[in-house]
Amino acid sequence: MEDCIFCKIANGSLPAAKIYEDDKVLIFLDIMPANKGHCLVVPKKHAETLIEMEESDLVAAVKAAKRAARALSLSFGNASFNIVMNNGKEAGQIVNHAHIHVIPRYQKDRLRIKWSHLKYDDNEISDYAEKIRKFI
Amino acid sequence: MEDCIFCKIANGSLPAAKIYEDDKVLIFLDIMPANKGHCLVVPKKHAETLIEMEESDLVAAVKAAKRAARALSLSFGNASFNIVMNNGKEAGQIVNHAHIHVIPRYQKDRLRIKWSHLKYDDNEISDYAEKIRKFI
Repeated sequence: MEDCIFCKIANGSLPAAKIYEDDKVLIFLDIMPANKGHCLVVPKKHAETLIEMEESDLVAAVKAAKRAARALSLSFGNASFNIVMNNGKEAGQIVNHAHIHVIPRYQKDRLRIKWSHLKYDDNEISDYAEKIRKFI
Repeated sequence: MEDCIFCKIANGSLPAAKIYEDDKVLIFLDIMPANKGHCLVVPKKHAETLIEMEESDLVAAVKAAKRAARALSLSFGNASFNIVMNNGKEAGQIVNHAHIHVIPRYQKDRLRIKWSHLKYDDNEISDYAEKIRKFI
């Protein structure tokens, strides 16, 4: 995609602090990290969200995310990390080229990736499950 | 694992609002959802985090996450969703059996999965990249 910043990084026309590259994916450091060492895993082939990603790109991306997580753990001794993928505007996606965040976590960091919990009414959870199952 | 709640759901000794099941993975509704319809994708084989997951389980899980996201979109018309995997205590992992959250998002929901951004000093990003590359 002509105006896509991640496509430009993938084709080498924009620089990035690259960690890993193969024919399917690229790993580089997020320049605005949640914690330092925060990696982005980006499929080279443009797709807007997880849903549009081709299966082979998705498989390559998740394997690369595991690889990044392991490397962060070995580099900095932090065994904890978040994997986050924001898909769509309402989910906080900023760059419309699917990407996986791999964020190292530390005991005293100030990062909060949490949510408050809603409750289902009686039987409501069964109704939701039945509805979703129709489209699975 | 004997005392693992997700192993018990996977082997049928605890109930859940199941959405999908095959030999590798299970999808069911989180009983304490961030938004209603919030799905959990759980590998049947116990592994604590992404790093310990066998490759075939990881591939099955990410394909199931895509499937759940698509089904949520078709069921409720919400095109946006977060994929979140908390690995390790410092990352907010509560159940120590690796799992992927698939959270539907809506324009006016009250959920915030965001982080503030840190900045690298001059050259610091290159130093980080070099260090991580050694272990990739």
